[in-house]
Parts: sequence; structure tokens; C-alpha cells
Amino acid sequence: MFDKVTLKLNVDPYILGALKEDITSEDVSTNSVMPKFQLGEVDLICKQDGVICGLQVFSRVFELLDENTTTQLFVNDGDKVTKGMLLAKVTGDIRVLLCGERTALNYLQRMSGIATYTNSIVQLLEGTAIQLLDTRKTTPNNRIFEKYAVKVGGGNNHRYNLTDGVLLKDNHIGAAGGVKEAVAMAKAYASFVRKIEVEVETLDMVKEAVEAGADIIMLDNMSHDMMKEAIDIIDGRAQVEVSGNVTKENIAKLSNLSVDFVSSGALTHSAPIMDISLKNLHPIS
Amino acid sequence: MFDKVTLKLNVDPYILGALKEDITSEDVSTNSVMPKFQLGEVDLICKQDGVICGLQVFSRVFELLDENTTTQLFVNDGDKVTKGMLLAKVTGDIRVLLCGERTALNYLQRMSGIATYTNSIVQLLEGTAIQLLDTRKTTPNNRIFEKYAVKVGGGNNHRYNLTDGVLLKDNHIGAAGGVKEAVAMAKAYASFVRKIEVEVETLDMVKEAVEAGADIIMLDNMSHDMMKEAIDIIDGRAQVEVSGNVTKENIAKLSNLSVDFVSSGALTHSAPIMDISLKNLHPIS
Amino acid sequence: MFDKVTLKLNVDPYILGALKEDITSEDVSTNSVMPKFQLGEVDLICKQDGVICGLQVFSRVFELLDENTTTQLFVNDGDKVTKGMLLAKVTGDIRVLLCGERTALNYLQRMSGIATYTNSIVQLLEGTAIQLLDTRKTTPNNRIFEKYAVKVGGGNNHRYNLTDGVLLKDNHIGAAGGVKEAVAMAKAYASFVRKIEVEVETLDMVKEAVEAGADIIMLDNMSHDMMKEAIDIIDGRAQVEVSGNVTKENIAKLSNLSVDFVSSGALTHSAPIMDISLKNLHPIS
Amino acid sequence: MFDKVTLKLNVDPYILGALKEDITSEDVSTNSVMPKFQLGEVDLICKQDGVICGLQVFSRVFELLDENTTTQLFVNDGDKVTKGMLLAKVTGDIRVLLCGERTALNYLQRMSGIATYTNSIVQLLEGTAIQLLDTRKTTPNNRIFEKYAVKVGGGNNHRYNLTDGVLLKDNHIGAAGGVKEAVAMAKAYASFVRKIEVEVETLDMVKEAVEAGADIIMLDNMSHDMMKEAIDIIDGRAQVEVSGNVTKENIAKLSNLSVDFVSSGALTHSAPIMDISLKNLHPIS
Amino acid sequence: MFDKVTLKLNVDPYILGALKEDITSEDVSTNSVMPKFQLGEVDLICKQDGVICGLQVFSRVFELLDENTTTQLFVNDGDKVTKGMLLAKVTGDIRVLLCGERTALNYLQRMSGIATYTNSIVQLLEGTAIQLLDTRKTTPNNRIFEKYAVKVGGGNNHRYNLTDGVLLKDNHIGAAGGVKEAVAMAKAYASFVRKIEVEVETLDMVKEAVEAGADIIMLDNMSHDMMKEAIDIIDGRAQVEVSGNVTKENIAKLSNLSVDFVSSGALTHSAPIMDISLKNLHPIS
Amino acid sequence: MFDKVTLKLNVDPYILGALKEDITSEDVSTNSVMPKFQLGEVDLICKQDGVICGLQVFSRVFELLDENTTTQLFVNDGDKVTKGMLLAKVTGDIRVLLCGERTALNYLQRMSGIATYTNSIVQLLEGTAIQLLDTRKTTPNNRIFEKYAVKVGGGNNHRYNLTDGVLLKDNHIGAAGGVKEAVAMAKAYASFVRKIEVEVETLDMVKEAVEAGADIIMLDNMSHDMMKEAIDIIDGRAQVEVSGNVTKENIAKLSNLSVDFVSSGALTHSAPIMDISLKNLHPIS
Repeated sequence: MFDKVTLKLNVDPYILGALKEDITSEDVSTNSVMPKFQLGEVDLICKQDGVICGLQVFSRVFELLDENTTTQLFVNDGDKVTKGMLLAKVTGDIRVLLCGERTALNYLQRMSGIATYTNSIVQLLEGTAIQLLDTRKTTPNNRIFEKYAVKVGGGNNHRYNLTDGVLLKDNHIGAAGGVKEAVAMAKAYASFVRKIEVEVETLDMVKEAVEAGADIIMLDNMSHDMMKEAIDIIDGRAQVEVSGNVTKENIAKLSNLSVDFVSSGALTHSAPIMDISLKNLHPIS
Repeated sequence: MFDKVTLKLNVDPYILGALKEDITSEDVSTNSVMPKFQLGEVDLICKQDGVICGLQVFSRVFELLDENTTTQLFVNDGDKVTKGMLLAKVTGDIRVLLCGERTALNYLQRMSGIATYTNSIVQLLEGTAIQLLDTRKTTPNNRIFEKYAVKVGGGNNHRYNLTDGVLLKDNHIGAAGGVKEAVAMAKAYASFVRKIEVEVETLDMVKEAVEAGADIIMLDNMSHDMMKEAIDIIDGRAQVEVSGNVTKENIAKLSNLSVDFVSSGALTHSAPIMDISLKNLHPIS
Repeated sequence: MFDKVTLKLNVDPYILGALKEDITSEDVSTNSVMPKFQLGEVDLICKQDGVICGLQVFSRVFELLDENTTTQLFVNDGDKVTKGMLLAKVTGDIRVLLCGERTALNYLQRMSGIATYTNSIVQLLEGTAIQLLDTRKTTPNNRIFEKYAVKVGGGNNHRYNLTDGVLLKDNHIGAAGGVKEAVAMAKAYASFVRKIEVEVETLDMVKEAVEAGADIIMLDNMSHDMMKEAIDIIDGRAQVEVSGNVTKENIAKLSNLSVDFVSSGALTHSAPIMDISLKNLHPIS
Repeated sequence: MFDKVTLKLNVDPYILGALKEDITSEDVSTNSVMPKFQLGEVDLICKQDGVICGLQVFSRVFELLDENTTTQLFVNDGDKVTKGMLLAKVTGDIRVLLCGERTALNYLQRMSGIATYTNSIVQLLEGTAIQLLDTRKTTPNNRIFEKYAVKVGGGNNHRYNLTDGVLLKDNHIGAAGGVKEAVAMAKAYASFVRKIEVEVETLDMVKEAVEAGADIIMLDNMSHDMMKEAIDIIDGRAQVEVSGNVTKENIAKLSNLSVDFVSSGALTHSAPIMDISLKNLHPIS
Repeated sequence: MFDKVTLKLNVDPYILGALKEDITSEDVSTNSVMPKFQLGEVDLICKQDGVICGLQVFSRVFELLDENTTTQLFVNDGDKVTKGMLLAKVTGDIRVLLCGERTALNYLQRMSGIATYTNSIVQLLEGTAIQLLDTRKTTPNNRIFEKYAVKVGGGNNHRYNLTDGVLLKDNHIGAAGGVKEAVAMAKAYASFVRKIEVEVETLDMVKEAVEAGADIIMLDNMSHDMMKEAIDIIDGRAQVEVSGNVTKENIAKLSNLSVDFVSSGALTHSAPIMDISLKNLHPIS
Repeated sequence: MFDKVTLKLNVDPYILGALKEDITSEDVSTNSVMPKFQLGEVDLICKQDGVICGLQVFSRVFELLDENTTTQLFVNDGDKVTKGMLLAKVTGDIRVLLCGERTALNYLQRMSGIATYTNSIVQLLEGTAIQLLDTRKTTPNNRIFEKYAVKVGGGNNHRYNLTDGVLLKDNHIGAAGGVKEAVAMAKAYASFVRKIEVEVETLDMVKEAVEAGADIIMLDNMSHDMMKEAIDIIDGRAQVEVSGNVTKENIAKLSNLSVDFVSSGALTHSAPIMDISLKNLHPIS
């Protein structure tokens, strides 16, 4: 769950934006046939196995539309859920339930999809000490939701954005005049609470980065043998991140190496949604 | 392309939101090593076959960061592109190119993914008169981009949101007291420029809907035989939309029926992104 | 009444804007003399006969300033009210009552003025099947209030804005290359839930529009005889809107023709306000 | 004209709000038939005699949509214009001209209506030393436009809002415990650059207000004789404002009295719009 | 205290801005170790003698983060407080107390610093009729807090901003063509509720300003003798403001002259903060 | 200088906020006397020795009001300037120069004050390896300006806000159940690019923190001897920050210890402003 502060300051504005995107003046269908308040209830039903994520956002959608809407949850974020399960019940003005349905599900399905997919990769890493990381390849204006879903799925978060982490890539290194210079400049410039990560492509760069005092070294697109050599050079003096195609086979190979982190953009840009729906909306007296 | 008015009023605010999500105070990596302006150039390279979409948004990201950044396009939205193709060149302050890269690609990859996937379904419909429609199952705060991408891929747009189209579902019908009543109430209430669409589940509902003067009838989850009967009942007096799993087999079957539209949420919620990247960033004098 | 969702998402921001326009840092008069909370009550008095409209907005102004302000209503939107009637009582911190008074009345008077004026025209149409429509000639940043007031007065709403309805005028037709082409392009482009309306000036255009399948035809500035001919040509194949000067005489003439809609910009741009005031503000213990 | 600073800080946000109200995602009619840029030109034609006002806002609407749109003005704010006159020509992308037309005219017609009506009252005051003032009875979110129009019409502005002027009414006086106390408290509290105005209903109050050092005294609803007495009491020690029904007869009577200001809410809440339209839109090569 | 209307419309947006500045996505330290709600309490302790100011803003910070946070105050704004005093207790979710602490103190310390410093100057003026005024030399985006603190410290407010007061300086006078012309133009232009203040540098300007009917005359950088002459010229026909270095010696000299106001930018731009801190945060069950 | 991206995304909104705070509808003084454009020029004059900072923000204020205003700079941020020096010339519409003057100076004076004060402390540290850090004790809604000024003055920045750095204080440690647990939880939770800093008060805590793998240890309020012992315990395994009263004497003592950082809230909360003014505004033809 997001803590209340994060919810109010940084999550609510996105949810409100999504609601305004869907309701530019009013819901004409609902308002045509329901001129008055009518209390109702609807079931949230799981239609696919997976890891559920986003229940707080789901219920918040309805609360922001009408503070009298309540959601009774039968599961929590991170729970494994199965097809057919009743996940929650939402109670409130039927008009509010109809207006919020699509936005609430759009968030819930996407977040659960990411958590489910992340979890499937985390399971491939079981038995190793390797942690799975996400990237900044998130959907625009959805990062806070997607990074949260990665955590719920068992992954961990790489830097949130360009402001809170240093990652020196080839162009930064080129501009600085070399790995050593780039690391030194970043140490001097970046707020002293940040670690310095460097992306390297050759063994020479690995050597230079370790010696310059990089905290984390990202091995980019290296063959298995080259990674092995790189890790020998690093020799525990920095943490090691491998980025790229995370497949069963690749992971099997990595598990022999002392890699600390594997990062994958696919967690957020290619996870299929999880099928969940609202069913059985009915008035209650 | 979005026309200029739409771009400024309704697209720019989302792009700026995405940029602020990624840069909460500054890009610490870039600012560490590049204290000064340096003109540079970078290539946009296609890494997967598909239908390109979102080039205007891609270039707008850089323009909003710095109006002196220019993008030279070698293809247009809707073009079929192939792995390895040079799609565009972006020229500007290297710091701007680095700051905008991720946001620009996040939009372009997602929009191209949707256009590509939509196009693959459109091809299945070739030779029929059936049009492919999207739904409101879009990513929150990304609808304007995703609905545009569906069009570029050859699909068409269902209603934009709850405000601009009427779609009466079972709960609306229940609240109104029947299909007939619901249609009458919607005709009386909704702005007179809107058509009335009704979602029906039984043949009785089909009959009632046609007689009530519904403009469009959505057949929900009907068997092939039932759809045939429904269409016989409708007999050209309303347009027919079929919603649901769009697979090769299903489409083959539909093509015998006089269905006007097939709608698919998967176009926007499950299209995998298209791999595209910025390469070869280098200073130019 | 606006439903709660519309109120929170789309009405409140305008009311808050109006309050900030009137109170840029504080109400210096009130704060000079009332340093402390004092419960008070004030009467809302009708000073002119008419159709009351905007009571929810009126009370919302005070609620947004202070959620402890309550409004007891003695009439409802749409009620005919007469000079001298007590319409409502507002109870709350006197300072809040003073701060909100002008903004609350500015909305209520204007909305009631529009409802009253609309209602007077609707009465002229009594006995005919012709519906009265508004236009987009609304006061900037007040459309949601003014279109609502037209409905309360017994009129109906034409399209809300440029996004939710298609109306092809001479320039659109010119750009497309003719009525037929314009209608075809609009059918292909506009979301399929929208009807296509065409504004025509000649009988040839009428013919072309009907044949192209326009859903609604707007007869622009035609003589009575020409309208008669146009309606014969249309022959029930499209709905007919007449726009322009709505006077008693004109309406008498129209009632012989099978016109479906009459639209009038004057409903929103020229309705005089209705005189209503807050009186007898007094402290209560 | 608004100075550039006011335009950018305080006017543009309202214009943009009005445009977003009219275009929630795109202009579907225009985009249906005009997929590409086409330079065009349109004439602004006066259809009624009056005082023109709002030309800068009119042209700003188009500029904000597209900075390449230009407006050539043939008259200036405050000019008396007559039916049939060509007021301006707007040149730009035809799509922009179509998208901005309604919003631009909604502002121009309303502002010109207020200027025209104000001017007609100002003429009644000709030959007297009485100045005409507006009130805070403006349309919500339109005050900056309407107060400007009053000035263009020859009137003057009362306080802009609750923050920038002190006006002590009966409830303020009651809360303070008397006119004397209220004036003293306002002098002590309100920023020292503000004058203190008091609204009075009896001759005793007039006396008290003058003696307390009120700068301006507003005579509320007094008979002609009572006003005469009040003015005798005031005897030049404070300015005198009369508020209320401004009719020819009333004004004739006032002109004998040494009244400084007459204020009228009708200037902004009841001025009929002035008829102005855009005609003859045509492509230019 | 700010009245509730000012708080909600004009103060809250700044507080929320300050909170978003400090929490761009979440408080990572707190969220690392406190995954769940835990009720807690913390003491607000005074660490320096002075005049306390900003307690409402202090408690509002926590309320905006979580409406369930409560602050029990033991002193009020304007009270003289001493080192070691317990000023308040805040109770709520410990996570909220930790997230809001810095922002709440940043406001409270700064506002108390200004009130304390202002009060020390006010004491120098004791026994004279001279009032102390602030200026527009406030910290950007903090004016409403700082002007309030000046009042709490016993000073008074000069104009709030460029909109609500007229102050004609040398450049205005130059542009108008002389003091007389400038005053006349300001009287004609500025809302009639505003007094006209003129800044003068020579005795000739003083004479001209009084004769033109200026309401307030600001003596800029004049010697003591020159001020004396200026005040003789003014002779009670306008109020007199002296601006500039407010030191004990200067004030001793001024007290012989009939000066009405002394203004000082230092009140807001150079007051040192007052040391106050939150101590003894502990969980309560 | 801020890079262009930071300027547009994160600095401009604050400057615009400050301008709107000062100009709620218009500058009534200027608009009274200057109805038309008049090109003018004004000199920026230094009135006190110090380190100049904020020139880009100063000129940006004018540019945001009117893009045709230009500033010619004769010094750069970080330069030591002396009383009487001509720092810059601003050229543009005189009305814009008058409207922007106060806001531009408010930023420039404050930022230069911070840079100057910071620089004076940095000089005390000369000859040591100790770096000077700021804190989060910044003025609300001014952090980006104040942290920048610290850098210009030769200091360095501690974490920007609660989101981008981890600093575990006594309450975090208490909640976690001990230093060791807190560090472990932070390592597990916080984005892996962040270092972990722990604030300690006893030697036991020092020991625990080093052993838990804290990256930075902040010695809070320790005596000189205790600090010495603490540093012996740490023995280079973590960086050492000392926070608190930075005076000449304290610094002399610290220089014997191997402390890495000294942080000081006074840099931003107590630096007096630097006196700078705009003089000699005059029209140019």
C-alpha cells in the first residue's frame, strides 16, 4: 500500500487526471437513466490466476468520486489469486460505481499484470542471490503505479527518475573525457547521498570504473565469458548489475556468476494485463 | 498527426507531466559531466518490424524541453518500418537529447506497439466490411495517444469517453426498467447529436432495442447461431457491433454475418511495445 | 442537480476559480471587523418571478469555503418562484456567509435568468413537437452551468463542444469538396457514436445531404417557403433543425412545418439575470 | 488593451480554460474534412452599431491556438462601429480559424455588449460631474474582461474584489458595534493604502460615518430628499456614491445633487451582447 | 490566525507546494522502516525567546497530509515565548509526523523569526504615534505568511502587491510628465477605493504632491532637516511615510517629527529565524 | 546556471507563482501613467560586497513577463562583486521593467545572500578536506533556488528532499528495533542507487551503524572527544558527517579530525540578503 502521504500528494493527482480524461463533463449514459441516488453493490471478480496489485488505487478511484463509497477487500496486494475468486465488494451510489468502473479496472488490471509478470521472473531467480530490478521504461504518467507493482511482484526498484540516481552511460563518459573523469565529476556534483553507477561495455572500462570508485557497475550486452572476466576484475569492490533479456536460459547462466542485480524493462513495458472484472452490480435498499 | 490545436491544448500537458515525472529537479548524471551547451545529434533506429506511430510526440518531447531541438523524420506515422531502418535524426543540445530520450521513446514504443498490433488485426478483417474498434480499456492518462495509435494502425475509435457517447449496459437498462425505457430516456437526455448504443444479451433484448430505435446494438458474448438470429431480427434497422475475443478463427466466422463493427480492448491494453532506440549520440560542432 | 461525480470533477474547479477571482488574499472588510467565528444565518429571497436554477451551485460555493456551512432549501431547481418568496436559509460562520455571498448570487442569478428565459420560449412551443435547443454561444468558462440551466428551463442541449458533436458548415463542406464528400469523411473519421449534422443553405444542398445520409439537417436562414420545400425533400429521412430568430411570430409559422428542433443562441447569451438576494443576515447563538 | 504582463499572467489562463472547455480532445468536424494545413482568411464583420471592445482577446484566442495566426485590425477598442463595417481580418491555418471562432466571438460579443451598454449610460451622465462605476456583479471567471469593458465604455471600476477594497455594509457595522467602531477597525486592519467606504441607510449613519473619517459614503436606497440631506451632512468631507437603478429619470434627478459616483450592477450582469460575426472564410494560397 | 476562507483558497496551495517540494514520490527513510500505521506524539519545544507565529500553518501541514493528525496548542500566535517552553503537542500516525516535520518547522521558524524581529522594532517606536510597515521585499511565494507575521509582531502591512495599492515612484512621475500629472492620472485610472501614494525626493516634489491631492507622501532618503521642512509643507494635508534604515538612533530622531509611518524591508528579508524544534517523538498505543 | 530543462520544468513554475503573487490583476501604478509601450533601460547596481548569485533567475523574471526583454550581464554567478559595481543592464518595455523589478530583486538578493554567507564559511574550511553541506531547512517553495546558491557559494548539497536520500534518525531506528535492523530495512527498501546515512548519538550506535554497513554516519551533538572516539571506531569504513553550529572555533577543532562533511542549516535559513538595486531607469528611443 502507498502510505497516506504519498497517496494524497503524489497518487491522487494522477487518479483525478484519469477520471477527468474519462468524464469531460458527465457520464451521459448513466445520467440519462438514473436521475437519483440509489445504493448499490458490485463484486470484483478475478478472471485469471496471478498476483493481485492495486487494490488501494482501485478503491481510491471510487472514494475520490464520492467519499461515501466503501470497498471491502477479501485479499491484499501481493496475494496470489485464482480465476473465479471474489476479490472485493464495492458499495455506494450506483451512479458512482458505473462512472468509476473503467478507470478503477484500468489501474487494477495493469498493476496486477505487472506484479504477476514480475513474480514469474522472480521465481526464475529463486535460489540465487540476484535481485530483479525494473527500469525507467514505464508508461508515461504511470511510473508511481508501475514501480509499486514491481515491488509487490517481488522485484526491486532501480532509480525512480533522472533526479534521484546517477547512471553514467557512454555519452556521459564521452563528455567527461573518460570513465575516471566521469565518476569523479559525478561524485563532486551529485548530492552526496547518491551512489554512482557506471554502464560499461569493455573490460578496460570495467577496470577504470572500479578504480575510479564506482559504487555499481552495469555490464551492458556482454557475453557470458566477458561477464565472468568483468566480475573477476571487479572482485567485490562494486556491485554488479546485468541488464537485458531476462529469459530462463539467460538466468540459468547468470546464476553461476556473482551478479547482484538483473534489470528488465519488460517488467513494465510488456507485462500483459490481468483479467479482472466487476460483476453483479445490483441495487441494495 | 495531431493538429496543432489538439497538440497544444490536450497533448502537451500530458507530455509535460511525463517529463516532470522523470525530472523532479534535474538530471544529475548529465549535469555532473556536462556543464555547458554542446550541439549533438542522435539517430532513431528501428529494431523490430512494424507500423511506426508517435513520431510527432517523440519530437515534441524534445521541443518542449528546448525549442531549438529539431527532428528530421525519414518516415511518417503509419509507415511500415523494418528492423535496422533509420527513422529520424534529432539535433540539439546533447543535454536535452539525454534528458528527453527515455520519455520520447516510452511514448514512441508504446504507440508503435499499438499501431502494429492493431494493424495485424485489421489485416485479418481484410475482405470483409467489418471495422475494427478500440474501447475505453486504455492506460490511464494515455488515452489520447492510444486512441490515435489505433487509428494509425487502421482501426477506428469507439467513443472517446463517458461524456461523448451513449452506451446502455445491463445496469442502465435495469435502472430504467427495460430496454425500451432506457433508450427513450437516453434519447430525451443525451445531447441530440449522439447515437444511442445498447448492449444486449438475449434475443428478446435485441428485439426490444431495435423497436425502441437504438442506433447501434452490441451483441455481447453470443454464440454464432444466436448472433445470426440477432442480425436477422435487426435486419438493417440498426448497426451491429460485436465485442470480444478477436482471433483468426472468430473473425473467419464473423465474416459471414453482416456485422458492422468488432471491438477489442486488447488493442490498447495488451499490445506489446515495439523496440526502437536512440543510437550514436555524438557531438557536432 | 449535477450528479456528485460531475460536481466534483467538472463543476468545483470553476467555482473555486470564481472564488479566487474575488478573494486574492483575504476579504479585508470582513476580517477588519470580525476576528472570530460567529454563527449566523441569512435568507435567500426571490425578488422577481421566474424559474429558479442553480441552488446546488449556490450552496456549493459556501460549502467549498467551509464544509460546516449548511443550506436549507425550500424550493428545487425548475420550480416557478415568485417575488418575495423565501427560497433558502444558509447557516454558518458569518464571515463565510459574507465572503461567499457575491459569488453564490452571481451564479444563481445568471442560471435562474437563463432558465426563466428558456422557459418562456418553451411555452411558445407548447402544443408543437418542436424541441428547443441551445448553442455554443455560452459565456466562456460557464458552459456547464449555462447548458444545465437551459435544461432546467425545459430546453434541450445541442452538442456540448467541438469534440462531442459533428456539425458540418459551409467551410467544412468546401474543404471536403461537397456535401456528399464531407458527410462521408465525417462518417469515416468521427467516433462512430456520433450523428452527422449538416448545415445547408440551398435546396440542392438539402438533397445532397439527405442522400449522403446526414442524420440531422440544419436549415440556415431559409424563408418559410423554402423550409417547406426542404422538409418535403427530406421527407423524414433526417431530423430537421432550424436555427435563428425565435420570436412568437416565427414560432407560429414553424409550427405548421415538421421541424424537429429550433436552436437559439439568445438562451445563453442574452437572458437577463433574475433578481435574487441574501437578506437579514444575523448572528445566532 | 491589456498590458502584456496582465495578458500573460492573468488573462491567458482564462482564455486557455475557455478553449479547453470547447475542445476536450479535438474538433471532430474540422479534423474529419481537413487533414492538412491550409492557409485561409476570414473577415470580422460588425452586425450592429455599438462600441467595440475585446479585439485583443479576440486575436489572442487564435494566437494561443497557433502563434502563426495574425489579426489585422481596422478599428480599436472603444471605437464606435456600425453595422456592416469590416472590423478585422484573421489569417492562418483554416483549421485554427474554425476551432477558435466560437470562443473568440463569445468574448468579443460579450465585451462589446458591455462597452456599448456602459457607454449609453455614460452619455446620460454627460454634463454632470458624476462618474459611472461597475460592481462585483460580474460573470464568474470573467471579471477581468468585464471590468475592462466597462472602462472602454467610459465607466470606471469600483473595487476589483474583496481583497483590494474596503466596503463596510450593515453586517460589518453590526459586528463591529457601530459605524464608528467599524471604520476605526478597518483603518487599523486594512492595508493603509485603501480608502474606507461605508454603506449607510439612515442620516444618523451618515453623520457617524463622516465623523469616523470614512473616505467614501454609499447612500443605499435613499429618497431624493434624504440624499439631499445626507449630502448636506457630508458637506464635502467624504466622497458620495449612489447605488441602484440607473434610469434616465433617476439620473436627471441626481444631477442636481453633488454626488460623485453612481454604481450599477446592470453594466456587467444585464448588458445584451453585440452581434458580430466571422464571414467569408476562404483559403488563400 | 488566517480565517478559514483565506486558509483554504490562498494558504493551502502554498503549503501543498512546499510538501511536494519535499516529497516528490515518497519519504524513503520512513517507508523503509515503518510499513504500518503507528499512533505517536511529539512535542514542539521552544529553543529561543521570542514572539511565536505560524502555529496554524504548522498544524495545517500535518492536517493536509492526514486529516486525522491533531495539534494541541499551549500558546497562541503573538504570545511571547521563552526557551524551553512546551508550545504544542502533535498526535497522529508517526509516519505523518516524520514526513511533515521539516516543512512545518520551516514555516514556523521563519514566521516566528519575522514576528520576533518586527516586535523588537515596534518596541523602539513605543511612545510615538508612528506605525511600522512592511514592504514587498518578501520571499517569493511566501508573502501571505510573511505579511501575516509582521502583523502578529505588531507591525502593519503596506500594500499587498502591485495590484492593490498605488505607489508612484520617480519613473512613474517621469512617464506622466510630473507629480501633478501622475497623481491626476492615478486618480483617474486606479480603482476609486485606493489611496494615492507618491514617493518624493525634493521639497518641490513634496509641494507638488500635496497640491495634487496625494493621500500619502513617502519621504525618500531625506535628511532630518529636510524631513522637517517637508512635514511643514505637508501640514497635515497628507499622511507621511518615511522609508529606510530603522535603527534606534534614527527612530529617536523621527519621534520628534509628525511622521505617520516608517517602513522597513528588513522585517521580511533579514529577520533571523527563531529556533524551535520537535522533540521526544514516541509511539503511543 | 540552471540547465534549460531544469529551468523550464522546475524553475519557471516558481517564478510565475511569485509574479502572480505580486500582480493579481495588474500593476495599477504603472498602468495609470504608462498606457503605451516605451523602450527603456535600467542598471543593476551592487550595493554591498559579496558573491553574486541568481542572475539567470533575475533575467528570467523579465523574460517570462515579456520575451522581448533582454539582460546584458557583466558578471557571472559565483563572481565576487563589490559595492558600486554595475552588474547588468536590462532593456525592454519600461512597464515590464517596473512590473518585474521587485520579484527579480527578491530572488537575486536572497540567492546572493546565501552564496555570500556560504562562501564565508567555506573559507573557514580552507586547508581542510571537509566539505560544507546544506540541509532541508530551506524556505518553503524556494529550495531549488537556495540549494543552487549554496553550490555557487562553494558548498555542496545534502539530499534534495525526503525522496532522494535516506537519513535514518532516532525515530526510524526506534521503529525498526535498532540501528542494524534499520540499516538492513533501508537497504532492502530504498532504491538501490541510494546510500544509507544514519544519525547516531552514542558510541554504541556508531559501532552498530558501521557494522550494519551504513555508508554515511552523522555524529549528532557529540563532544570533541566523543567525535574523536567515534571516528576511530568508524576507521574509514563509512563517511563521517558532523552537523551543527559552524563557528570559527568549532571548525578549528574539527580540522584535526577526519571528518568528511559539515552540514549547516544556517546557510539557507539565516543568511542575510545582499543589497542590490535597480537604478537609473530611463527611456531610450
